[in-house]
Amino acid sequence: MHQHQTSFTLSTNGQALYEFTQDVESWLASTGITTGLVTLFCRHTSASLLINENAAPAVQRDLLRWLSKAAPESDIYEHDDEGPDDMPAHIRTMLTGASLSIPVVDGQLALGTWQGVYLAEHRRIPHTRRVVAHVIGE
Amino acid sequence: MHQHQTSFTLSTNGQALYEFTQDVESWLASTGITTGLVTLFCRHTSASLLINENAAPAVQRDLLRWLSKAAPESDIYEHDDEGPDDMPAHIRTMLTGASLSIPVVDGQLALGTWQGVYLAEHRRIPHTRRVVAHVIGE
Amino acid sequence: MHQHQTSFTLSTNGQALYEFTQDVESWLASTGITTGLVTLFCRHTSASLLINENAAPAVQRDLLRWLSKAAPESDIYEHDDEGPDDMPAHIRTMLTGASLSIPVVDGQLALGTWQGVYLAEHRRIPHTRRVVAHVIGE
Repeated sequence: MHQHQTSFTLSTNGQALYEFTQDVESWLASTGITTGLVTLFCRHTSASLLINENAAPAVQRDLLRWLSKAAPESDIYEHDDEGPDDMPAHIRTMLTGASLSIPVVDGQLALGTWQGVYLAEHRRIPHTRRVVAHVIGE
Repeated sequence: MHQHQTSFTLSTNGQALYEFTQDVESWLASTGITTGLVTLFCRHTSASLLINENAAPAVQRDLLRWLSKAAPESDIYEHDDEGPDDMPAHIRTMLTGASLSIPVVDGQLALGTWQGVYLAEHRRIPHTRRVVAHVIGE
Repeated sequence: MHQHQTSFTLSTNGQALYEFTQDVESWLASTGITTGLVTLFCRHTSASLLINENAAPAVQRDLLRWLSKAAPESDIYEHDDEGPDDMPAHIRTMLTGASLSIPVVDGQLALGTWQGVYLAEHRRIPHTRRVVAHVIGE
C-alpha cells in the first residue's frame, strides 16, 4: 500500500463553480495507483468542494443561484465587517462542505458519466484557493 | 493493510430514501476487515447519500418534504429541458452529497444506534443507481 | 502503513458549535503518523460535524441562526413526538453531515488558517456526543 499527496492551486475570479476534475485525474495517473481512495480537502471557509453535472453549464448557474437565494447578501448578519458577501460565503461553504472522498477504480476516479469535481467560490473578489489531495492504495 | 471494492446497484421507484445499511454490513463482513475505513460514493448527480434516523419512517418523509420545499419543482430554473424534477434533483444532491466515510470498528460500521445509510433518490421515474464502496484496513 | 482509532466524547449544553480541533490534533500527535488521512464520524442523527471559521464567534452564531431559520421549530412536521426541536435537528444534521475527511501533512491536520473542526449540537437539552476518529498513514 502506498500514499501520495499534492496541492492544487486554483485562481478564482468571482462567484462560480471551477471544475478541476482533469487536474485530479492527471495527478492520480502520475502516482501509479490503480485501486484506492482519493480525498480532496479545501483549506478555506468561504470556498467549498462539490460534485455535480459537468455537461450543461446552466446547471452550474442554477446551483449558484439557489445558494445565493438561500443565503442572500441582503440579509442582516451579526458578522458583517468583511463585506456583505462574507457571511453568506461561510453559510454556502457549510452547506456544500470542505472534503470529498472518491474511490479509484482501474486507475481512474470512480465518477459517473455526468459527474465533475468543482471548487465553489463564494466570494466576489479574486482569490487563490488551495485544495489538498491525498491518495492511498496500490 | 488490505483494501477491497464493490459496487451496489439500487433500483429506485420515485423520490424516497432507500436504506442499504445491511448490504454494506454484509459486504464488509465478507472482506474480513475488522478495523479500517469504509467509503461510499454515489455515481449520480440527481441521487445522493445520507445518514439519518432508521427508526421512525416519518423522519425520512419529513427530510424529503424539507428538500422538496427548499428546492421546489414549481420554481423557475434556467436548466429545465429534462423535466421539472431535474434541476431540483441536482440541488438536493448538492445539499446532501455524493460520498460518506464510516470507520470500521470490531468488524462493523461505527454507526450509532439510530443511524442508517440511505440512498436519496431525487427523480420521479424509476432509476438504477450505482454506489461504489471501498474499504481499507486489516 | 499504520492505522489508529479513538473516540471523542463531547458534552453539549444546547444548540451551539463546539470546537474540538485541539483534541484531534493532540490525538494525532500521539499516533506518530505524519502523512495520512484522518476521518471523523459523528454517531448521532441530531448532531453533526462541520468545518468553519474559528476566529470570529459571530460567524458561528450566524451559521446556527441560518440553520434555525432554514428548519424552524415552528414548522409543522409529521415526526413530532420527541419535541419541537427533534425533527429540525434531523434536518440540520442532514444538511451538515456526519463525516469529515482531512489529510495529514507534516504531522498536522491540513486545515487552513481560519478552519476549525466543530461538533454542531442541534438539540436543546444537554447531550453526550460520540465522535469516532480514524487515521491511516505512516
